Amino acid sequence: MEQEVVGATPTSCTKTMNKKIIKPSVDLPGGFTDRKEQELVIRDFLIKQIKEVMTKYGFEFLETPSFEFTESLGKFLPDKDRPSEGVFSFEDGKKWLSLRYDLTAPLARYTAKNFDNLSRPFKRYQLGTVWRNEKPGPGRFREFLQFDADYVGTNNLLADSEICVLIGEVLEKGGLANNEFRIKISNRKLSKGLLEDLKILDQDQQSITLRAIDKLDRVGTEGVKLLLGKGRKDKSGDFTEGAQLEEKKIDKILEFLNAQGLDQLEKIECTNILFKEGILELKKMIKNFEFFKFKNFKIDPTVVRGLEYYTGPIFEAELSFKVQNEKGIDIEFGSIGGGGRYDDLVKRFKNQDCPASGISVGLDRLLYALNQKGIFNFNQKNPILICVLDEKYMNYYFKILNLLRSNNINSEIYSGTSNFKGQLKYADKRNCKYVIICGDDEVSKELVTLKNLVLGSKAAENIKSREDWTKSADTQKTFPLSNLLKENKK
Amino acid sequence: MEQEVVGATPTSCTKTMNKKIIKPSVDLPGGFTDRKEQELVIRDFLIKQIKEVMTKYGFEFLETPSFEFTESLGKFLPDKDRPSEGVFSFEDGKKWLSLRYDLTAPLARYTAKNFDNLSRPFKRYQLGTVWRNEKPGPGRFREFLQFDADYVGTNNLLADSEICVLIGEVLEKGGLANNEFRIKISNRKLSKGLLEDLKILDQDQQSITLRAIDKLDRVGTEGVKLLLGKGRKDKSGDFTEGAQLEEKKIDKILEFLNAQGLDQLEKIECTNILFKEGILELKKMIKNFEFFKFKNFKIDPTVVRGLEYYTGPIFEAELSFKVQNEKGIDIEFGSIGGGGRYDDLVKRFKNQDCPASGISVGLDRLLYALNQKGIFNFNQKNPILICVLDEKYMNYYFKILNLLRSNNINSEIYSGTSNFKGQLKYADKRNCKYVIICGDDEVSKELVTLKNLVLGSKAAENIKSREDWTKSADTQKTFPLSNLLKENKK
Repeated sequence: MEQEVVGATPTSCTKTMNKKIIKPSVDLPGGFTDRKEQELVIRDFLIKQIKEVMTKYGFEFLETPSFEFTESLGKFLPDKDRPSEGVFSFEDGKKWLSLRYDLTAPLARYTAKNFDNLSRPFKRYQLGTVWRNEKPGPGRFREFLQFDADYVGTNNLLADSEICVLIGEVLEKGGLANNEFRIKISNRKLSKGLLEDLKILDQDQQSITLRAIDKLDRVGTEGVKLLLGKGRKDKSGDFTEGAQLEEKKIDKILEFLNAQGLDQLEKIECTNILFKEGILELKKMIKNFEFFKFKNFKIDPTVVRGLEYYTGPIFEAELSFKVQNEKGIDIEFGSIGGGGRYDDLVKRFKNQDCPASGISVGLDRLLYALNQKGIFNFNQKNPILICVLDEKYMNYYFKILNLLRSNNINSEIYSGTSNFKGQLKYADKRNCKYVIICGDDEVSKELVTLKNLVLGSKAAENIKSREDWTKSADTQKTFPLSNLLKENKK
Repeated sequence: MEQEVVGATPTSCTKTMNKKIIKPSVDLPGGFTDRKEQELVIRDFLIKQIKEVMTKYGFEFLETPSFEFTESLGKFLPDKDRPSEGVFSFEDGKKWLSLRYDLTAPLARYTAKNFDNLSRPFKRYQLGTVWRNEKPGPGRFREFLQFDADYVGTNNLLADSEICVLIGEVLEKGGLANNEFRIKISNRKLSKGLLEDLKILDQDQQSITLRAIDKLDRVGTEGVKLLLGKGRKDKSGDFTEGAQLEEKKIDKILEFLNAQGLDQLEKIECTNILFKEGILELKKMIKNFEFFKFKNFKIDPTVVRGLEYYTGPIFEAELSFKVQNEKGIDIEFGSIGGGGRYDDLVKRFKNQDCPASGISVGLDRLLYALNQKGIFNFNQKNPILICVLDEKYMNYYFKILNLLRSNNINSEIYSGTSNFKGQLKYADKRNCKYVIICGDDEVSKELVTLKNLVLGSKAAENIKSREDWTKSADTQKTFPLSNLLKENKK
């Protein structure tokens, strides 16, 4: 470590060489953030919806740990130029451990480990944090909450189809209308088959080609053309080496990318068997969608999905409305998750044949978008504050508190050290809707004064004493303690 | 890394020097575990209870990230002999990052950062994973789920008292009776004051002394006596260096540890001002407990709490019933959490004066204990399985599925590739209570056959065909599809 830390007590302060105490930073490392109540309560609501949908669809809940052996997770992240190839790893004795970068690789490990005891198919869902060691930058998070649903142990395309349908239902339960999202589907066999047909067989060249296709959204057709050919210089002047393909091949790939729907895809001249299989699988999925009465999908050959382990159908959930970014500019929000079939991932471990398919949704991103739609009504449940006007009445204040809490009414006795004015400021800051104020009068006659603060926050600035308060009070009411529950219901 | 990993596809397999492919491990690193549905659903229930209690008590929900700058977290863990002093740390550019080892240090950082915007007091709760880089061993976890509730920005002892009361309510809501747990309280000022009085002023000697006291549970009075004196040899023969105190001082400390209740504590001859303050604070807390009508506490000078940052009242929640360990042996379960006042922790950052007090509860441990009490009734909500007898009836099966799901009934169409017998085995493995079987007869007449599987799991072994099935069927029923919802309600 570069600098010593300051201990808890003055006597344990450590000092640097030049005797200057260095205070620790109050900031967070880049890519990490604090989350407050409103966001968390809304997130809880969404998670509850997800769990209900998953149970309805017959999925089991699973949780794998944050750490796995590095070798178990494997290396399937795109963009190899990130620190430690995108993974947080550290040495543990003679082995390396890594924080999971997704929930799929751990599922493959779990399946291989429990292969004989799992039902086939094994339908599981998981919610959890994943970590990516991205280069820190604005808006790039290094940990995010992910939701995954997977079918393990079946090559039946019902699985892939149902996964698309269930994500649709999750988005609907999250408050989106049918025209606000769309599941785009494609198939890795199409691009793989096409590349084979074009004799692009070199692994690296294939990767560069797929990565170029994946950038269509950002760089447009012309950009992809350059990336498939000699290469492309971006706005900053950085040059990205291209796949060095001949023009004929580039044209064919662009024809594929521009194909609208099944008809145009089928018209593409490609005798490769994988390509044909890809078409057939798309057809089956469409048939399944009909069964499900699910219409909110679109065949889109430009869907590639970054991770390397996909082998068949791939899909992407896309929001089709505009949201504002941090600068207030309208942007297309785009993908909030995706997935596909990964038939060879479990095989890595013990050669068990175990086809699988699944989807991941980035919950933080989804919540950001849903919040922008103003779908959620955050109902703050801030407590009723019981002011402490005099310590000698503590017994009375607790009588009120115990009554409220035993009736499940959110409430607290002021527990700071400020005077009455400070207590009102506290109530204001906490957005309390009500305060209870009991002084000599109330206590001696077993009364309670309940003040509605909703309109009172500005007036409070001018209050110096209990008397000022009483004068300003057009939204307060005094009644017998025995009526408190009745009054609160109103 | 010591060995290469095996990639997703055969072509990307990397090989070791001697050309042998090394398969990745299916095991988890020591100290980590997978958690299945039953445990997770019960955990969800407990978390829901906690959130309700916290809202009722007026606490705000907060989430800080898993990583912080190492310097921000500080070094407050006991047992310095753990790898990296118990913390998972990573070098990130020029700084070091660490995974949080508790939720208190991050709260101190958050408070220092947002000092001017927070209400005073700031009452926050948090639920989250914390990581400790323990030496791997049986039953020692390196990540666990923690629940924390803290009062920041007040030295009012109402805060400390309420924290004890709310943990009591959380345990009650978790299903425990009043005689099944107890909150033990003490005060750091007592031990600190006593040590000062005994002229034990050296920081290291103080630490060794406190650590010896903390071991009373495990080593008994005689063991503590040795640890306070020359040292102690444990069963394995390992020798722990003692605090080298004189006999008189040791006797005084033991008198303190054996004091039962406030009366005996007050009788201890100790003129130290801190010690007196400690007694006074205990008295105030007892008074507050009276207000709360909270009786489930016990003054216990042997409570020390491991973390170094405590400055005042300390408390520990203890379960007072026996549970079975992994070997089936009855053990006293002991502490499931604790905390205390840490008035100097926020000061580390910017010298803001910010007294605070809080508690942490280990949820995994608590759940383990609650599960042993058999408190929870895990109500499995496994789906109704719609068998696929013939692909040509898919339309009909989906008609049933869509009907069930649109009425929020958990259900699925079999999506594997097995025959009828395999489908029943699947239903068995999934613990499905019902299967729906529709063949020629049912489909042609718009009927549904619903089979109750609860008693049928053994019989299923002998079923080879639909006919066998029908014969064995004393718990099945055939009725019009239009009656399905009605029948399901029964």
